[in-house]
Amino acid sequence: MTSLQSFKEYHVPKIEQQLSEQILSIKAPVVLKEAMNYSLSAGGKRVRPLFLLAVLDLLKVNHRDAWTVGATIEMVHTYSLIHDDLPSMDNDDFRRGKLTNHKVYGEAIAILAGDGLLTYSFGVLARLQEVNAENKLELIHLLSRAAGAEGMVGGQVLDIESERKKVTVEELETIHINKTGALLSFSIEAGAILAQADYITRKALTDFGFHIGLAFQIQDDILDIEGTTEELGKTAGKDVASEKNTYPALLTLNGAKEKRDWHYDQAILSLRQISEEPGLIDELAAYIVNRNK
Amino acid sequence: MTSLQSFKEYHVPKIEQQLSEQILSIKAPVVLKEAMNYSLSAGGKRVRPLFLLAVLDLLKVNHRDAWTVGATIEMVHTYSLIHDDLPSMDNDDFRRGKLTNHKVYGEAIAILAGDGLLTYSFGVLARLQEVNAENKLELIHLLSRAAGAEGMVGGQVLDIESERKKVTVEELETIHINKTGALLSFSIEAGAILAQADYITRKALTDFGFHIGLAFQIQDDILDIEGTTEELGKTAGKDVASEKNTYPALLTLNGAKEKRDWHYDQAILSLRQISEEPGLIDELAAYIVNRNK
Repeated sequence: MTSLQSFKEYHVPKIEQQLSEQILSIKAPVVLKEAMNYSLSAGGKRVRPLFLLAVLDLLKVNHRDAWTVGATIEMVHTYSLIHDDLPSMDNDDFRRGKLTNHKVYGEAIAILAGDGLLTYSFGVLARLQEVNAENKLELIHLLSRAAGAEGMVGGQVLDIESERKKVTVEELETIHINKTGALLSFSIEAGAILAQADYITRKALTDFGFHIGLAFQIQDDILDIEGTTEELGKTAGKDVASEKNTYPALLTLNGAKEKRDWHYDQAILSLRQISEEPGLIDELAAYIVNRNK
Repeated sequence: MTSLQSFKEYHVPKIEQQLSEQILSIKAPVVLKEAMNYSLSAGGKRVRPLFLLAVLDLLKVNHRDAWTVGATIEMVHTYSLIHDDLPSMDNDDFRRGKLTNHKVYGEAIAILAGDGLLTYSFGVLARLQEVNAENKLELIHLLSRAAGAEGMVGGQVLDIESERKKVTVEELETIHINKTGALLSFSIEAGAILAQADYITRKALTDFGFHIGLAFQIQDDILDIEGTTEELGKTAGKDVASEKNTYPALLTLNGAKEKRDWHYDQAILSLRQISEEPGLIDELAAYIVNRNK
């Protein structure tokens, strides 16, 4: 077993336990809690919390709130998936091989389950036990920016606007930096905040987050072409069929792979500024660009 | 001019200026900012921020962040209206005499404009200038609870579930305590936090918020029967036509008025625990239960 495998086998159940416990503790209508829990427990790679934990591993810090913060990020990620899948947005029936939230609970409850997850996450950050007040406020400020109009929400708007027109590579990059990069970068920065990292370390981690986020997204586009529906848990080839703006569409498949590898290399170079020895976070980064689902 | 009128004429433009400035400062796609601004500037009584300001008036405290916090609450209120109006929810075409957000911008942008407003509000609270860190975290924690699954989101779910069935008065009360009461109560509690009110004052204000919130909602139900479409800016009589669960439907019109007046009296009694002399907040409370729109 690689160290990444044992790392995931240790941490993923802890994150998922946090998710269940958090949802269970909410005093809310049963159907709402069920809908929130349905999408939270629908699998997923838990990439964002794992990056947070890998940053702490890199900086050799144990933090008792790490799983809680990781779970919070997963809640925000899940809210964005629920809303993105809605009929008025991407209109997806399946996600990770399971019916999407609105296909099970209807659109109204799906929208509200997303709203509930998003709103709850800020409360969790405000109540963290082992983080000082200033750091909690910094986490909340950065999450608000990453998740909101200046980040994910704005990125989704740009993505919608880019449908039915050709965009440039720069425009596509802006979409992805906001739509998916912002929350991944937040996860990495949150690790740095929990570890009370110094300015230079934090700057290197921010650069790492930027590049690994783009590499992650380019691999997503590549998988739509090279992956199978079974592996992906969603319809492969959908991007090509819908003439979606993707890196392979704009750069050819090989061009996209080159760009992915360039961002991956930049990400790894940033890590070397922090630690000369490759560590677990290197393995996680490599997994991100080599995954088949 | 009554003192309430001059109070409103002084504060409402300041709150609305805050709203415009906040939205203007966001770096986001133009259409998203337009959609957020469209609903924020669509009028409305600004009741929640006014209650916050009236609490500060009652406690004789000037606070430089009061308008900002008030604007934040108005953003959360506006997000909830945008989502509630969606076709999969209440399916309303008009709000305050203007087309609803999704009728102008489409469902996808409307959902995202709501998400953006909600997300942004937490960041604003985290960045307040004149509030100490612990108080900011308390505001964020309480707003998360008031707006989320344990408050507004949960109340909307209960409201949806109550369609096409008869509910008891207690069940109707639970819906409204969550759906509309929670944010109104938060506004009042936020005033107490900004004023650093002592425990007894805060308890009296919490009681006031609970009762005035219910009186406010009962009056809303009454206006659906007694108001005109022109005054309301939305279709009068819609609740009756759709056989919605309302206080008049469950208690008769007179019974609803009695209940409204009882909650109003309780609210005023709570204020008398803080100040023997009726003040501006009394006028605002009276306006809430006597308004015709």
